[in-house]
Amino acid sequence: MNEFELIALLTRQLPANEIVVAGAGDDCAVLDFGNPERLFLFKTDATVEGTHFTQKTPPEKTGRKAMARCLSDVAAMAGWPSAAVATVGLPQGFDPAMIARIYNGMAAVAREFGVAIVGGETTTNPGGIFISIALLGTVARGRQVLRSGAKVGDAIFVTGELGGSLAGKHLDFEPRLAQARWLAEHFQIHAMMDLSDGLAGDLPHILKASGVGAELLKSAIPISQAAKSAAKKSIEGKQALLAALTDGEDFELLFTVAARDAVKLADAWKGRFPALRLSCIGRIVAGKKIFIRDKGGTRALNLSGYSHFNDKCFS
Amino acid sequence: MNEFELIALLTRQLPANEIVVAGAGDDCAVLDFGNPERLFLFKTDATVEGTHFTQKTPPEKTGRKAMARCLSDVAAMAGWPSAAVATVGLPQGFDPAMIARIYNGMAAVAREFGVAIVGGETTTNPGGIFISIALLGTVARGRQVLRSGAKVGDAIFVTGELGGSLAGKHLDFEPRLAQARWLAEHFQIHAMMDLSDGLAGDLPHILKASGVGAELLKSAIPISQAAKSAAKKSIEGKQALLAALTDGEDFELLFTVAARDAVKLADAWKGRFPALRLSCIGRIVAGKKIFIRDKGGTRALNLSGYSHFNDKCFS
Repeated sequence: MNEFELIALLTRQLPANEIVVAGAGDDCAVLDFGNPERLFLFKTDATVEGTHFTQKTPPEKTGRKAMARCLSDVAAMAGWPSAAVATVGLPQGFDPAMIARIYNGMAAVAREFGVAIVGGETTTNPGGIFISIALLGTVARGRQVLRSGAKVGDAIFVTGELGGSLAGKHLDFEPRLAQARWLAEHFQIHAMMDLSDGLAGDLPHILKASGVGAELLKSAIPISQAAKSAAKKSIEGKQALLAALTDGEDFELLFTVAARDAVKLADAWKGRFPALRLSCIGRIVAGKKIFIRDKGGTRALNLSGYSHFNDKCFS
Repeated sequence: MNEFELIALLTRQLPANEIVVAGAGDDCAVLDFGNPERLFLFKTDATVEGTHFTQKTPPEKTGRKAMARCLSDVAAMAGWPSAAVATVGLPQGFDPAMIARIYNGMAAVAREFGVAIVGGETTTNPGGIFISIALLGTVARGRQVLRSGAKVGDAIFVTGELGGSLAGKHLDFEPRLAQARWLAEHFQIHAMMDLSDGLAGDLPHILKASGVGAELLKSAIPISQAAKSAAKKSIEGKQALLAALTDGEDFELLFTVAARDAVKLADAWKGRFPALRLSCIGRIVAGKKIFIRDKGGTRALNLSGYSHFNDKCFS
């Protein structure tokens, strides 16, 4: 048993109770406190020096990212974020002005999305800055979108453009809260998540939770300008498509919808969010695998996304 | 401006919204989501290697402590804990079996108090193990007990015995959830908190929030056997009373109640919780200061409790 299998085992044995609608394993936990209109969403995310930011990252952007990562998870459930608590672990001899700037970045994005910061603490952490944020939100009862609802035949959509996030977007991304709620209000979204570990790393989560496979259309995958530019400069020759499939921290929405709704959805999206690209990148198929199709034919995709343990975001 | 003043300033400027009944600064935040019967409690606490535990601490006890610290905060509001998320930052080369034991300790105490663990993550943290837990709970609407309600003339009570927690209790303490709810159900508790930084360090939080002072009766302060034993062995000559006043991590309840309720409360307590000592240690007075009274007279108390930044719990 390796460390990941161990952790997977641990999270299967966590205590539950009668309020849990969905526990660990989705973008947020879903909790039922008996409110007739709303369910609660609960999520935590850590943002760690050396993994998610460096000493060179402007501190406001570090704070913004720490909060926005949780907001993106609430978006993935089609929810409204409400209140956050934030813990910041600090090495000895930290600069108070820098911490103030981290808090300012955190507070600014919270304010932008109507989120209260209602607690937290600063504590020592010898190895560097460690930010842990927990976010509480709500979702209209019955409108929460899990990862487990994808059905064979569904169209697969992704917002925005993928890859190359390290060039800047990983700090500046917009949590897709308004878009996700609009989707869930107007369409029967079968499954949804936010992309943090790359399309090739994250799509398997939907597939596994739903017991299905997928076929992607190579030419339909939206590759960001940043990924294309990086590909041109890359001495290792990382192709732009590979970057779009495997780079982490896109924080775009990945979702599936019945094929019969796909065209209507794409059309309505253009009217509602004309500035944000939406791409139908393939379809859900039977089985477990991901296939990729181009003019040369269809072949199995076998890549793994950005891993939080093995790869540093910055090297 | 020193670092603590800066952080105090930062937390005063945090964003709020219409759901916040009480934000940062109490044992838990109190949130109103419109449920006619209940308010929500939200809290986070970090448990850090080298500060709250060492590499010699049995991992189950580390996990238990990390969760129990948050439970103690929900107790301090007279609430019910519901669901937690837990993030564990791990250094390179960690031992998976040790992490499993931390999770087991966390899960066991969560189960004991009916709390679901609904999410979290493991991530890298170069400097050591960093556990951040956020806990969501509820409290009967109107029955939440803040720090700000102490009134001149109130009797001051404390549960259990104080000091010497490092000898073992800091890992094994029982969150006083049942006791706190019983208190709030049967009496008008004016102010309450849990003791984490020592009586002399924590009582000022109630006094400041309530705009009052306190007079403690020296002979009434319940000194733990551990503090007495340590005092006998101490080469620095730390007196047992000083330990009871300043040692951290007692995790007992400190609360105030109108003087007219004090005897009735103490009598009822003996019937309900015969195994847990309850001590009336003094009274709330006008002003801002803490006085301590013994047979020699009354003098101002000027001590500061265990500080998370300046003192390590283990040295």
